[in-house]
Amino acid sequence: MAATSDTNTDVLTIADKTLSSRLLLGTGGFRSLDALAGALAVSGSELVTVALRRIDPGQHGSIVDVLDRAGVQLLPNTAGCFTARDAVLTAKMAREAFETNWVKLEVIGDERTLLPDAPALLEAAEELVDDGFVVLPYTNDDPILARRLEDVGCAAVMPLGSPIGSGMGLLNTYNLRLIRERAGVPVILDAGVGTASDAALAMELGFDAVLCATAVSRAEEPETMARAIRLGVEAGRLAYRAGRIPRRLYAQASTPDEGFPEY
Amino acid sequence: MAATSDTNTDVLTIADKTLSSRLLLGTGGFRSLDALAGALAVSGSELVTVALRRIDPGQHGSIVDVLDRAGVQLLPNTAGCFTARDAVLTAKMAREAFETNWVKLEVIGDERTLLPDAPALLEAAEELVDDGFVVLPYTNDDPILARRLEDVGCAAVMPLGSPIGSGMGLLNTYNLRLIRERAGVPVILDAGVGTASDAALAMELGFDAVLCATAVSRAEEPETMARAIRLGVEAGRLAYRAGRIPRRLYAQASTPDEGFPEY
Amino acid sequence: MAATSDTNTDVLTIADKTLSSRLLLGTGGFRSLDALAGALAVSGSELVTVALRRIDPGQHGSIVDVLDRAGVQLLPNTAGCFTARDAVLTAKMAREAFETNWVKLEVIGDERTLLPDAPALLEAAEELVDDGFVVLPYTNDDPILARRLEDVGCAAVMPLGSPIGSGMGLLNTYNLRLIRERAGVPVILDAGVGTASDAALAMELGFDAVLCATAVSRAEEPETMARAIRLGVEAGRLAYRAGRIPRRLYAQASTPDEGFPEY
Amino acid sequence: MAATSDTNTDVLTIADKTLSSRLLLGTGGFRSLDALAGALAVSGSELVTVALRRIDPGQHGSIVDVLDRAGVQLLPNTAGCFTARDAVLTAKMAREAFETNWVKLEVIGDERTLLPDAPALLEAAEELVDDGFVVLPYTNDDPILARRLEDVGCAAVMPLGSPIGSGMGLLNTYNLRLIRERAGVPVILDAGVGTASDAALAMELGFDAVLCATAVSRAEEPETMARAIRLGVEAGRLAYRAGRIPRRLYAQASTPDEGFPEY
Repeated sequence: MAATSDTNTDVLTIADKTLSSRLLLGTGGFRSLDALAGALAVSGSELVTVALRRIDPGQHGSIVDVLDRAGVQLLPNTAGCFTARDAVLTAKMAREAFETNWVKLEVIGDERTLLPDAPALLEAAEELVDDGFVVLPYTNDDPILARRLEDVGCAAVMPLGSPIGSGMGLLNTYNLRLIRERAGVPVILDAGVGTASDAALAMELGFDAVLCATAVSRAEEPETMARAIRLGVEAGRLAYRAGRIPRRLYAQASTPDEGFPEY
Repeated sequence: MAATSDTNTDVLTIADKTLSSRLLLGTGGFRSLDALAGALAVSGSELVTVALRRIDPGQHGSIVDVLDRAGVQLLPNTAGCFTARDAVLTAKMAREAFETNWVKLEVIGDERTLLPDAPALLEAAEELVDDGFVVLPYTNDDPILARRLEDVGCAAVMPLGSPIGSGMGLLNTYNLRLIRERAGVPVILDAGVGTASDAALAMELGFDAVLCATAVSRAEEPETMARAIRLGVEAGRLAYRAGRIPRRLYAQASTPDEGFPEY
Repeated sequence: MAATSDTNTDVLTIADKTLSSRLLLGTGGFRSLDALAGALAVSGSELVTVALRRIDPGQHGSIVDVLDRAGVQLLPNTAGCFTARDAVLTAKMAREAFETNWVKLEVIGDERTLLPDAPALLEAAEELVDDGFVVLPYTNDDPILARRLEDVGCAAVMPLGSPIGSGMGLLNTYNLRLIRERAGVPVILDAGVGTASDAALAMELGFDAVLCATAVSRAEEPETMARAIRLGVEAGRLAYRAGRIPRRLYAQASTPDEGFPEY
Repeated sequence: MAATSDTNTDVLTIADKTLSSRLLLGTGGFRSLDALAGALAVSGSELVTVALRRIDPGQHGSIVDVLDRAGVQLLPNTAGCFTARDAVLTAKMAREAFETNWVKLEVIGDERTLLPDAPALLEAAEELVDDGFVVLPYTNDDPILARRLEDVGCAAVMPLGSPIGSGMGLLNTYNLRLIRERAGVPVILDAGVGTASDAALAMELGFDAVLCATAVSRAEEPETMARAIRLGVEAGRLAYRAGRIPRRLYAQASTPDEGFPEY
């Protein structure tokens, strides 16, 4: 029997949506639709990203059918957009196609790093919020930008741990802590997760959720990794709530001679 | 519903014992026997350490009753021993008291760091193996010493991640990898775990199990942390088996334009 | 006798200025003008920052006299500016006051972290370049922003290692490498240096120069630290040019049995 | 002009020897005797290691001539010895050959990692001290073992930063700090240095000296790297003495509004 966590009462609320799962899944990169369906099922994810550019939403036998059968909510992204204008346009097309005003906003700075373009991201976010979108921006780990994205009305902020698909984990936990500490909206780690411990660490920093794509879809066994990262997210969340011991420079015996009753 | 893992078939074998759980729990430092019992139950641990020095095994209403009711196997340790001679003597007394020839061997170098004394540890290990003990030594992260401990017949090696009770996690993953890579017996991370991601990371390095004490017993909510670390161990084990993506210096889109079918 | 480095021929060129020293010094935070003068002399720095807000350039017996006597060039900064408009105005006042069109551009996002505000920084940089300034922007470690700053005509980019005055060194060497790799203008590490090894590391990553302020001015012995960091910069520059050995996972004897002549 | 450091009065004393330079150089791995001579000259090193096994001390035109001309003191090592007995024997032969009772003691645990064998090292150290040697043991980063080596009479301890020739720098600064903090004899970082900042960091931790071999001999330009590492050692030593600023989680302006006189 695996451990169970009391996730029932520890829900995540983004805008008007309430989620039991704190793992968001990206749908790109799977070797087949079956692999996607399998990973999705074990992940427990309730909110998954899709890229409009790859999908014809009306086509049957497509990824949309898979997601529909899984009963998950779609979060269209603007992957592949390199300007604010292009991202805004893509968001609007996705709103039509998927009948949702939620968007994971990406405005990419260059193809090699896929890092976000900060000024263009802020500009696009502001425009989409004004147009009634629920905007979840993929951003770098800049605490100032995160704050400004929140200030223009984003429903969450989604800083990266490291570049998309790099699997390098959380490169700058200092900045990520700062973002978490000062945010008034949910903070979701997006990009960089390579394995379960990365996801656990993000949650232990107080992040509200984790989004994974490549780490699952390109693992040797995507389904097993989906389960691993799901458990990692749950483990990290519980550990955050449990109140960890402080780090100490010197040892402390678990059985000191004084200070509490011997039994 | 929490995720389930197929731990049924992925068992851990140490000497002649087969365990379903890869989490070992230390019993020291809990605020009460009830706290211990609660953490033990959710941890799923099947093998727990006890310090002879703190316990009168014959006394009722004691920690031994708690462990007995939990149905776990005891692993006596030689905590507090500073010489090979003292550790060997303590191991023999524990064998009598707890009616088991298993021992977690500790020979400590000083009180401040509680780091092991390498030469004395090797000497005690050899003597105890010769005397018929199943010896699981608490060692530092020295790959050469780990190999020598295995060579004298230890049933597992238990390197530290960082000092006992420090909660600093895994300070030298390079050495820990080396130990794992070259060991022919189970390798169990002992000491240094502060939170769930530390446990997950150890398992992702290929460790066979993790032992926690202070991280659970001194957490603000020991029971919640026991569950967190249990899930962390399971997450890390699954991630190890799933085959993680490689770390890359540059980004890789989860939805590249070429290389596999569009759907 | 201390080592000498052939810095004579390894000069740094920013816009139309050629510098022998790769260490820039900030002038704030010293306990006295004498302490500043002493540190400045041993640092070898030829370009030092001054904050207009703290200085009345016409006043005798002031910091300006000290810098004048030291024969260094002034680089006015816009410390304390929180908007593009304020930074631009301050730059223009500094141009009048110090009779230089060079400016170290700072647009700060908040008082607690003193991190730069990316969109406002880019806006101010563009405006100042258009107005004929030689702009050296203090920026975060975002490779995309660094590129955009270069694209609008900045004469150098000055990414941080960690927040101003934090002394935390280089938190994200991955991003710093990316910035270095793609920049066509000099890259100067600004902020975060706490000690000599931080400065050396920045230079080993290929950075063209290092700016220090707090690390020197608030050290217990500023003059000794100025000398230390000067040597650190020189050491790192030489190491960069010397071509370091690769990192290896396994040992390599310096005296292997094969591969080159025994002597 | 390069910076000069007041190394004149900051000497290093090991046993009865007083050294101005805190950089020890290994002589193995150079592409030619000329390369060795060049690197040696710029390094400023006064104490260099030689491996008896590679050298016929009586042969002219050999490495010994080079070292003789350089006026440096020889420190024979026992490289290539895998047992205490072999190391002791080699040390005695070296004493005859080089007419010095100093020895850098190496007892290696395996060929792949070249990590020391702790129990065998301690045994050999004790025996050599009893026989009148001045023993400088190459050890791992184990604080307990370092203390025991000092207790048996070693004149210094030489912990590694990472495996010989790996260039991975200082993997476990926590343990290295512990060793430094508790040692009553000089502590010399031996092995792992890959570049100048590694050497500076070791000195900033309070180490008394640094030994380099591969980092210099196998650099693309050994002479330039020798100069770089020499400056790194000096920089780190000065920084240690200068008293660095503390690390802070938040920014601190170098020009705060309060707390010291405005000028």
